[in-house]
Amino acid sequence: MKKIAVVLSGCGFKDGAEITEAVSTLISLSQHHVEYKVFAPNIEAETLDHVTGETIENRNVLKESARIARGDIKDLQELKSGDFDAVVFPGGFGAAKNLCDFASKGADCKVNLDVERVINDFYNSQKPIGAWCIAPALVARVLGSYNIAVTIGNDKDTALEIEKTGAQHVECTVDDYVTDRENKIITSPAYMYDDTPYKVFTGINKALSELVEMA
Amino acid sequence: MKKIAVVLSGCGFKDGAEITEAVSTLISLSQHHVEYKVFAPNIEAETLDHVTGETIENRNVLKESARIARGDIKDLQELKSGDFDAVVFPGGFGAAKNLCDFASKGADCKVNLDVERVINDFYNSQKPIGAWCIAPALVARVLGSYNIAVTIGNDKDTALEIEKTGAQHVECTVDDYVTDRENKIITSPAYMYDDTPYKVFTGINKALSELVEMA
Repeated sequence: MKKIAVVLSGCGFKDGAEITEAVSTLISLSQHHVEYKVFAPNIEAETLDHVTGETIENRNVLKESARIARGDIKDLQELKSGDFDAVVFPGGFGAAKNLCDFASKGADCKVNLDVERVINDFYNSQKPIGAWCIAPALVARVLGSYNIAVTIGNDKDTALEIEKTGAQHVECTVDDYVTDRENKIITSPAYMYDDTPYKVFTGINKALSELVEMA
Repeated sequence: MKKIAVVLSGCGFKDGAEITEAVSTLISLSQHHVEYKVFAPNIEAETLDHVTGETIENRNVLKESARIARGDIKDLQELKSGDFDAVVFPGGFGAAKNLCDFASKGADCKVNLDVERVINDFYNSQKPIGAWCIAPALVARVLGSYNIAVTIGNDKDTALEIEKTGAQHVECTVDDYVTDRENKIITSPAYMYDDTPYKVFTGINKALSELVEMA
């Protein structure tokens, strides 16, 4: 049975992992008979009221991510590429605010050290990396110098920032995905489009079929 | 296009809506080309750390549910049966702690007045009611005197409490559902079993196929 690590960044699209993308990932991995384990960084992060958009308080990213993972979660520090066949990063603002600061800094963003280590280790071990929504920007920041190809859909400003890292941006519809076979990077736009949960699930499910086969 | 209301009870299985069940509901409704709207009660409720299980603070059920609904949510007070063709209650401890107090009181539980009104109004309008996981206990508490048939899987103690309300309990596997055609009640066990997200999604998806057809 293949083993795949999933890295979350909180719980809620305004300040953490996009919940539908995270759950679509876990539904799809279990559909593909993959053994998965969920990880998140054990850090405090700003959170937002999801009705008003106001900043409310800091919450712990690991503890909030545990809501999606039903408590079955580990500190990202414990994630070793040797233990898994692939790694997947769902999106949401958490990926661009808690795993790195792409949301405010764009192509010059700093990446959480454990996230950077994990992406480099999986890449150097030739193990596939999946990323949805805005998370491909994070992967591009770390691996852009290898000229990887990723998609975040068709948002021109975000695509321009991504190309500043050295990565190529490929346009893609919500229910599809882009594979860079040479670099084993698989990306799907998900909620970079304002579309339905089923379309988001479809894109992620197709992307994971490819990723699981490649793992 | 049919319109279906979804009632959430927070965000996280220990103190709110079970997230995979809630997202599976929204994926499935959009797959079935249904227009849906998410509602939750605007009340404060005890929340738990999902890593340690400790009680941490009170949070607002509407605001936390908004994380799952991507901010597109309304106060349960505004839910009128005349505006929708059916209503669905995902599970999680929130259904048994925030929508009623079944978790502590069992068959003698009190039900949130808006939840009780909504269940009675949809029932009296002969519009289908769906409920997953522990939420069928809530529906049984309100409609048990009509001898409705529901499932919460195969947990004997919970089934006994449900039968005290006058409802019948029918055993069911995680990836299946029970329909009471006469009373238009559709229930699926979901995370009453410790099974995979895909199995939970499958049960909910099948149940919603039936519910949407009936609506």
